[in-house]
Amino acid sequence: MMNRFQRGDKVSLIHEKLNTNKNNFKTYSMKILLMVILLAGEIAQAQPVRLRWEQVASGVWKAKIGEAQSFDLLKAGGAIPRMASLKTLGERAFPPEQTACYAEMQTGKIYLRLPLQKNEQIFGLGLNFKTIQQRGEVLTLHMDHYGGTDNGRTHAPVPFYVSDKGYGVFVNSAQYITVYAGTGVRKDSPNPPLVFNRNTDSGWEAQPYSDAVEILVPGNGTEVYVFAGNNTMEVVQRFNLFCGGGVLPPKWGLGFTQRVPTLSTEDSVRKEVEEFAKNKFPLDFIGLEPGWQSKSYPCTFEWDKTRFPNPATFVREMLDKGIRLNLWLNPYLSPSSPLYEQMKPLSGSHTVWNGLVPDINLPAAVNLYRDLFKKEHIDIGISGYKIDEVDGYDNWLWPDIATFPSGISGEQMRQVFGLEMQKLTNSWFRENNRRTYGLARASNAGGVSLPYVIYDDYYDHRDFITAMCNSSFIGVLWTPEVRASATSEEWLRRIQTVCFSPMAMINAWADGTKPWSYPDVAQQVNEAAMLRMQLFPYVYTTFAEYYFEGKPPVRAMNLIEGFSVDSSVITASLNSTNNPYAVALREDCKDQFMLGDNLLVAPLFAGEKKRKVIFPRGKWYDFYSGKFAGNGEVIEIEPGLDRIPLYVRDGGIIPMIPSVLHAPRTGEVLPLEIRYYGEATGNFALYDDDGETFNYEKGDFNWYQLRVIKDKKGNSKCIAGLPKGQKSMGQYGSVTWKYMSGQ
Amino acid sequence: MMNRFQRGDKVSLIHEKLNTNKNNFKTYSMKILLMVILLAGEIAQAQPVRLRWEQVASGVWKAKIGEAQSFDLLKAGGAIPRMASLKTLGERAFPPEQTACYAEMQTGKIYLRLPLQKNEQIFGLGLNFKTIQQRGEVLTLHMDHYGGTDNGRTHAPVPFYVSDKGYGVFVNSAQYITVYAGTGVRKDSPNPPLVFNRNTDSGWEAQPYSDAVEILVPGNGTEVYVFAGNNTMEVVQRFNLFCGGGVLPPKWGLGFTQRVPTLSTEDSVRKEVEEFAKNKFPLDFIGLEPGWQSKSYPCTFEWDKTRFPNPATFVREMLDKGIRLNLWLNPYLSPSSPLYEQMKPLSGSHTVWNGLVPDINLPAAVNLYRDLFKKEHIDIGISGYKIDEVDGYDNWLWPDIATFPSGISGEQMRQVFGLEMQKLTNSWFRENNRRTYGLARASNAGGVSLPYVIYDDYYDHRDFITAMCNSSFIGVLWTPEVRASATSEEWLRRIQTVCFSPMAMINAWADGTKPWSYPDVAQQVNEAAMLRMQLFPYVYTTFAEYYFEGKPPVRAMNLIEGFSVDSSVITASLNSTNNPYAVALREDCKDQFMLGDNLLVAPLFAGEKKRKVIFPRGKWYDFYSGKFAGNGEVIEIEPGLDRIPLYVRDGGIIPMIPSVLHAPRTGEVLPLEIRYYGEATGNFALYDDDGETFNYEKGDFNWYQLRVIKDKKGNSKCIAGLPKGQKSMGQYGSVTWKYMSGQ
Repeated sequence: MMNRFQRGDKVSLIHEKLNTNKNNFKTYSMKILLMVILLAGEIAQAQPVRLRWEQVASGVWKAKIGEAQSFDLLKAGGAIPRMASLKTLGERAFPPEQTACYAEMQTGKIYLRLPLQKNEQIFGLGLNFKTIQQRGEVLTLHMDHYGGTDNGRTHAPVPFYVSDKGYGVFVNSAQYITVYAGTGVRKDSPNPPLVFNRNTDSGWEAQPYSDAVEILVPGNGTEVYVFAGNNTMEVVQRFNLFCGGGVLPPKWGLGFTQRVPTLSTEDSVRKEVEEFAKNKFPLDFIGLEPGWQSKSYPCTFEWDKTRFPNPATFVREMLDKGIRLNLWLNPYLSPSSPLYEQMKPLSGSHTVWNGLVPDINLPAAVNLYRDLFKKEHIDIGISGYKIDEVDGYDNWLWPDIATFPSGISGEQMRQVFGLEMQKLTNSWFRENNRRTYGLARASNAGGVSLPYVIYDDYYDHRDFITAMCNSSFIGVLWTPEVRASATSEEWLRRIQTVCFSPMAMINAWADGTKPWSYPDVAQQVNEAAMLRMQLFPYVYTTFAEYYFEGKPPVRAMNLIEGFSVDSSVITASLNSTNNPYAVALREDCKDQFMLGDNLLVAPLFAGEKKRKVIFPRGKWYDFYSGKFAGNGEVIEIEPGLDRIPLYVRDGGIIPMIPSVLHAPRTGEVLPLEIRYYGEATGNFALYDDDGETFNYEKGDFNWYQLRVIKDKKGNSKCIAGLPKGQKSMGQYGSVTWKYMSGQ
Repeated sequence: MMNRFQRGDKVSLIHEKLNTNKNNFKTYSMKILLMVILLAGEIAQAQPVRLRWEQVASGVWKAKIGEAQSFDLLKAGGAIPRMASLKTLGERAFPPEQTACYAEMQTGKIYLRLPLQKNEQIFGLGLNFKTIQQRGEVLTLHMDHYGGTDNGRTHAPVPFYVSDKGYGVFVNSAQYITVYAGTGVRKDSPNPPLVFNRNTDSGWEAQPYSDAVEILVPGNGTEVYVFAGNNTMEVVQRFNLFCGGGVLPPKWGLGFTQRVPTLSTEDSVRKEVEEFAKNKFPLDFIGLEPGWQSKSYPCTFEWDKTRFPNPATFVREMLDKGIRLNLWLNPYLSPSSPLYEQMKPLSGSHTVWNGLVPDINLPAAVNLYRDLFKKEHIDIGISGYKIDEVDGYDNWLWPDIATFPSGISGEQMRQVFGLEMQKLTNSWFRENNRRTYGLARASNAGGVSLPYVIYDDYYDHRDFITAMCNSSFIGVLWTPEVRASATSEEWLRRIQTVCFSPMAMINAWADGTKPWSYPDVAQQVNEAAMLRMQLFPYVYTTFAEYYFEGKPPVRAMNLIEGFSVDSSVITASLNSTNNPYAVALREDCKDQFMLGDNLLVAPLFAGEKKRKVIFPRGKWYDFYSGKFAGNGEVIEIEPGLDRIPLYVRDGGIIPMIPSVLHAPRTGEVLPLEIRYYGEATGNFALYDDDGETFNYEKGDFNWYQLRVIKDKKGNSKCIAGLPKGQKSMGQYGSVTWKYMSGQ
């Protein structure tokens, strides 16, 4: 038998075994020491080593491989594990099948091997747009715009996957890792695939069975985490909480937003706001696109005084009308900026559109941006940013051979630049104790707690919904933004879905489309938008669950308990004629999702009149009528154009407010209508706080317990529980219960 | 100014500067020594260092960067530079603009920077299918099937480019290098792009001007070569000769080949051969597909005795009829093979379709295959192989984390497995002093001299022709093989082009299509095939030029002198209405090509009746009629379905033989008709040898000088010059000159 390792590799491997260093210099001395030991004759056998797991939180374990890294995704995102919340989730045993994980070091890279069971499904591995199940795929997780193929190049190449066997794996590396998600077959596999002769055997498959996820980390060290859970949701919750917990947006962030044409002026924005009011269309914030800046692509971050002569006054005027402003930017500094010469030595070797790429790992670079952004935007009342062009594409951004003064590589910078811009801008709002909520074209693990929603230029409605499903596995938010559409039907269908997303946005920067631009569906568009506003108490609470419990607001069906459990049972006997349910589960379910615990959203797409809806185990009811719709089965519906199909689980409680033109504001009191559905008892914890500050982090919030119980005679009894000492439900005044009886 | 390097990186860089080691162990001790020096306080400033060029052949220079590599592309291909031929090309000065090349080492990788001039065009960088000019592209050169995008993933990811400024650059690395071919802009660039404000300036471009090619080599050492030349062709010649010189196929290799259905038997092959004879269609070799093996996917490499009960007898029988056999294989060893247990320790960690991946860098593994292949195939008269499935795709092949007992990485193995299989199989034929000629789905630099033609499953006719153009920049051969077509028009158009390619192949493995399967074009198909056979003396000579001079047989227009010179002049004033020539040159010219020095091929594609043809400087004549067609201009033609448009340059000489059903055989004597065209004098060196052995390498060949000169009265005089002491032109008997007067 040959020696399969080159001499240099042995060093790395031994090093990995002994590695306990915390800083570069110690690592460095240790390396020399090890080399001397090696020279003295102590040559170790380099073989794959079993990972040693160390518990780091309730249900969370870490293994270190190779050299400690000064930079990783959690550090880039500034993620602080929410230890108390993790504890609340409870202790779990280490997933027994995952004890046999191996790593080896080869030619300066790390090779990982993590077992897969038969019939195991895995989800996640970046923001994919076409597929939900990732087993059998090869993905190189590489920050980029989405190019039409699920190959790992995407706006959120998060190196995390969750298994339906109740665990998740996260590789905390800011490098382009390649994941062979159940493709490789080792010759020494204990579970080898069957062998066929392709010439004559029909059982031959192009991709034989593989019993492992294998991962290539192109670096000399990384951390791997395992998250346990009784189900996929619990695993995702642990991942999210470990990465800082979910975002709680300001209330206005969940209202409507319109992005106006790029060369808009104070006057045109004023007019836009008036038109929204006149058309009785909800509006909470307006997005200004590149032309608000004196120069952009690259950016000055300063106002264009011909279009916005008095920014502070104008922002104040808008705030007085209840309208916030969001500013587009890309973070590349124009040669016309007064900061240019100061930033030059603090920036990367390469420019982007002639703009400097500030090394935002250097405090000096950060401070230059901070002072400018605070003075020009944040301190005059700007509400947030749209951070553009931090994802790709290769021909535009800095090359991977770019160097940065902090020592971070071009590759690492690519993986986290958008994430770090999120972290920094958020921290500047936080200094003023004001929440922000904005858009970013790039995110990554470590950004779960950051108040940004991902978007892109790709504009396939179905794939946008699939992305929304997939966002729920990996701790990011995604908006299927609406732009001009080919038909009024498409416009309406897109509006209907964006209303059930983390940001209800129309992006009219290029075309100036208004919500009422398609007159034949203007009424239905308005109704869809109003429904989102009515659902505000429910939607805000789903985000509170994201923050407090790590449950994503939008959820793929594979995170829903009754759904995933059934799938593994029924897929054993596939038959597309006799057992459509099994087929539906075996195929990706990527065109429906849950918003919070109770609401199942089943959108339609232009050109379609019918669709299938898959209900998880239990009874489900039509949201609008309360009628029984199905019980753990697949139904076909033909819902008409006017409404997006919505279903509520048995015992589901949905708190609502009247149609309003803005999200609830501080001091505003609104009546609450609490709808409840089905036959089962139910309870719903309704969340509320001031909606604008970070005071909720210090306990300044309330949970109102809404319950439907049965009395001795079996009649429903509705209870709205107030916290001790409280006399009202805060922002919500009168309370009306409404049983959606289906009659 | 910050220190832009991490501590670990300094080691690499100093190491690079001092590197003179030849073996791993010395490298290793040196590393420790350097580390000790560093610790002692001698901290070097890590900055990009200028490459130091060392002349290694006439017009060829090398720079070493980082650690010496035990494995690279030239080694993998077994390339032996043809020093004498390089000398014949003459001495050239080092390209002056290329003296300012820089390298730096960062985090174990090499960053290269090579200057580009304004208006410079570059070609090559892998077998691309859609684009000719590569400036402005980002390509990660990664062995793979072609997936529909020119992104570096292709069957021949050759890291070589040629510039129209008269030089070429080759990175001799068997790793996935990324080339930023004029995209990156450094903040310290001496030639920065103009700055625009996108909001208001129409001159804004998404990709500003870049003054360099930048390359990321993901390893700790590599060699870079620069090739000089007075023009693109001379640069390519030097590259080809340095990589071993071009292939001289056996004569039969340039005849027709049919690949028969996968489960063919001795009887069905016999019948196929009879049918070809009956239909008077040329045929030199037949390709047997997977079913010739007892088991395949993975392979036993042994005959299926139910379909081929007596292989040796059958091969002999076919040879007696003048038909050779070529065997399909993929190099993955079936568990059913008697060699399996012996090969197991000599193979990679992962299997492909359950087959072992032999580490063919180990002599023991090679010998197992050699003995089997010689005994089962080569020694009984098999003529060659079709080496399949050595390119991609990621989900099927071994992952990059695969390890191999020789120490080669999975990545390196991926880049060269096809190349090494070519080298090995070729060497086994060479042991019998017999040339082979076959197909391989993967090649790379270092394989120029190997007798294999690349093919793939992608089936776009236009892109196939573009690939043929691009093959000429990078030292590979490509065939636009013909498979079943949607219409008889498409069938004919495809046949017409494959007849002007390195291998005239119909691939009927899946569908059994015959040349005459489309009766309404059967006659024209036959004529196209017969024309290739008639052109045999010309075609064989173009390959001899490949071997002796490094000139590729098929040539992109950008390699043709009068073409490239004009382009740089005329593109200055673009105007698509008034100056179509300039536009045509500014756009890629990718649908016409030269075959040898004299013949311009301008194919048509199904659905098209007209096309433009761009003539390089000088007069051009219609091949069929001899009529004047144009002079350094763009013409539009409407040539009809029957013939593929062909043009001959002024003074062009085309030696031809009669229509024959097989390539000229040893001892066969054929009359020669020498056509000549135009008004200028001309000369053509006609090559001949035994057509089967390697004796030409020992001088056993002849060049016959065919010349048309003018006498004092201006009349043409034709001379066929014989080498001293020879009385005839070898295989060619009677000689007839035919002036294609255009009358």
